[in-house]
Amino acid sequence: MPASIDFYFDFSSPYSYIASEWIEALAARHGRTVHWKAILVGATFQATGLKSPLDHPIKREYSLHDFERSARFAGVPLKIPNKFPVPTQNAARVFWWLHDKEPATASHWARHCLRACFARGADLSDVSALQGLAAEFGLDPAQAQAVWTDPAWKARLKAVNDAAITAGVFGAPFFVIDNEPFWGNDRRPQIERWLEKGPF
Amino acid sequence: MPASIDFYFDFSSPYSYIASEWIEALAARHGRTVHWKAILVGATFQATGLKSPLDHPIKREYSLHDFERSARFAGVPLKIPNKFPVPTQNAARVFWWLHDKEPATASHWARHCLRACFARGADLSDVSALQGLAAEFGLDPAQAQAVWTDPAWKARLKAVNDAAITAGVFGAPFFVIDNEPFWGNDRRPQIERWLEKGPF
Repeated sequence: MPASIDFYFDFSSPYSYIASEWIEALAARHGRTVHWKAILVGATFQATGLKSPLDHPIKREYSLHDFERSARFAGVPLKIPNKFPVPTQNAARVFWWLHDKEPATASHWARHCLRACFARGADLSDVSALQGLAAEFGLDPAQAQAVWTDPAWKARLKAVNDAAITAGVFGAPFFVIDNEPFWGNDRRPQIERWLEKGPF
Repeated sequence: MPASIDFYFDFSSPYSYIASEWIEALAARHGRTVHWKAILVGATFQATGLKSPLDHPIKREYSLHDFERSARFAGVPLKIPNKFPVPTQNAARVFWWLHDKEPATASHWARHCLRACFARGADLSDVSALQGLAAEFGLDPAQAQAVWTDPAWKARLKAVNDAAITAGVFGAPFFVIDNEPFWGNDRRPQIERWLEKGPF
């Protein structure tokens, strides 16, 4: 059976959201499964001295325009929320709590939150908004909050992030397929070719 | 007649080289011409506080791999030279000297130098190598050298760079089509859609 695709994403990344809308269908067409991995790119940036494109004034306007154009190009509804970007570690901790029980549930939670944020403008950094999303998803909001304040799940997310940096991940979305790294939503055409015809 | 495509490129940029190999044919298929503009992305980085991906250790290895993979994906021969990156302002000054007499000649010079560098390993920062390329191109090598040491052509290149930064250009390759900015060789699919069907 062909190896699963590692899909590193960040809950605050518009390009991660766009990729999250096509990766499952693309993988399935090629008999692959997807292993979703929530990371915090901000922590990666800190560890590596990188910066978000949004922190460079000359890149910021282009990036905001490109997020929406790239979404239209992919046929994905996207509206950058008024408050953007926001810290999303709480959604990521719930992701790993769900993941360690059942990875498929965690990937559904990821899509639920990414769509809420980037298609409906939900603020994932707002405690009551995130509790509402947890309830919509069928979780007990109080239990979700207990998870994201629990040092054990904070540590789990930090360990995942550290492992990602060690594995060479420096942004999101980031894909690893058959040990081959692909960075960015815009590597989709190369990923498609790789899945169709193998290494090139 | 549809507007010409502004194509900003850097003689030291592998992604610029890859794009330089497809932009003319793509433009021609859609009845467009291409206005080539040599810039120095290093100067842009300095002005804007940006850094080359090669200066970030964690990105460097990925970038070197991605240059060659992206070239194979585009069907373009590429081998990163042993000495890389190198300063390329001399080639760029000759470009603008040729450009101000006849832009088409300048774009041929650009392709001549980009191919020499990225397909054959020529060192564009080496004076005698660049003189040799000038001779191959049918220029008088001594005259070419007089151009690239001439304060007037230094100033011309600096003015172009400053204008590019003012126009929002922060990397290479960078395309402006009907006032729409596209950054990167990997925006090719979006550029193709724009040329085929207009704004999206």
